[in-house]
Amino acid sequence: MPERSKTKTRILKTALELFNNEGEAQVSAVDVASVMGISPGNLYYHYKGKPEIIAALFEDFEEEIELILSGPISEPLNLADNWVYLYIIFEEIYDFRFFYRNMSDILMRIPQLRTRFSRILSHKEQTAFSLISDLEKGGNLTFQEGEKGALAGRIAQHFTFWLQYHDLRHETTPPKILIDQGVFTTLIQITPYWTRGDGYSELLTEFLEGQS
Amino acid sequence: MPERSKTKTRILKTALELFNNEGEAQVSAVDVASVMGISPGNLYYHYKGKPEIIAALFEDFEEEIELILSGPISEPLNLADNWVYLYIIFEEIYDFRFFYRNMSDILMRIPQLRTRFSRILSHKEQTAFSLISDLEKGGNLTFQEGEKGALAGRIAQHFTFWLQYHDLRHETTPPKILIDQGVFTTLIQITPYWTRGDGYSELLTEFLEGQS
Repeated sequence: MPERSKTKTRILKTALELFNNEGEAQVSAVDVASVMGISPGNLYYHYKGKPEIIAALFEDFEEEIELILSGPISEPLNLADNWVYLYIIFEEIYDFRFFYRNMSDILMRIPQLRTRFSRILSHKEQTAFSLISDLEKGGNLTFQEGEKGALAGRIAQHFTFWLQYHDLRHETTPPKILIDQGVFTTLIQITPYWTRGDGYSELLTEFLEGQS
Repeated sequence: MPERSKTKTRILKTALELFNNEGEAQVSAVDVASVMGISPGNLYYHYKGKPEIIAALFEDFEEEIELILSGPISEPLNLADNWVYLYIIFEEIYDFRFFYRNMSDILMRIPQLRTRFSRILSHKEQTAFSLISDLEKGGNLTFQEGEKGALAGRIAQHFTFWLQYHDLRHETTPPKILIDQGVFTTLIQITPYWTRGDGYSELLTEFLEGQS
């Protein structure tokens, strides 16, 4: 994280909470100041406006998610760790949910985030590809031509739109269940490539039992 | 389609073209009038504003997509027709791309479309479920517990976010290739469940050959 004054840190923390809970479009910089009990002028002294606050929050998210995505590339995960790892990714996305929920609008308003977000997506695909390649090398997964790349792209797309699709399809869901479903719908995309007989159903059963 | 005056029809046609090509956020009702060579007052006489134009375009899309989605339920498709059918869906979505590209923003501005769009998504899932159920009954696909519903949901999610994800990941792509990729990445989600040996690879090979 970049070094920041105490006030800057408090502004970002308050803004993130408000954006996530009320929806980013519903919250102004003045609202953030008012919740903090500081004057708008004081807030504007630290951040010129809402786009600057969003950009700073994005920077934090970028740093964290890049760190997470680089994890399994430097050190291959064992089988059981795979879904713990998925939880970490989904929780990180959930923590930054205001952005994921209103992505196209935010990227239109703050276009300089577009290339950076696109880089994160490309990194997500690479990490997914590397994860399933490790499982393939270990003899756990088998792919036909073209399937591996398509699966990696699909997983990255799922990370990106899981929240929005869920919001469109369902009423509000408690966060834990929302994240469980994100992980589950990722795993169930991977299991068809599982080498049959080799723990295929066990993986899902174990996961489902862990849920109840 | 609802019956409309000639001018109303021209307004909608012009607006759809401008929204699709320039991006909906970049185009105002006055722009539409100016491209048509009519006065803003004349346009406002027919449609009170941009939200009303978007709502009318949505109505047309809704009617067409509902018709398409109801097709295979009333009359099961044979195998070869399946990807033709996917083309029809992706082309229909592509024709209404301004909406899919800026969905969360538009649904925030015109909240009455939300429930209706959510109903279309639910219909998409049902149709996908019915399509793969037919293939399962015909002995072409085999599913483990939970996989069929998850696949149907995933296909509907893919229909919904294919364009946005593509925009985020890639530079502009010619429409034909964009739609080909949408269809391909749907098919390659279904093929792992294909009863092995039973035309599994042939399906994809045939598709890929059709592309070149």
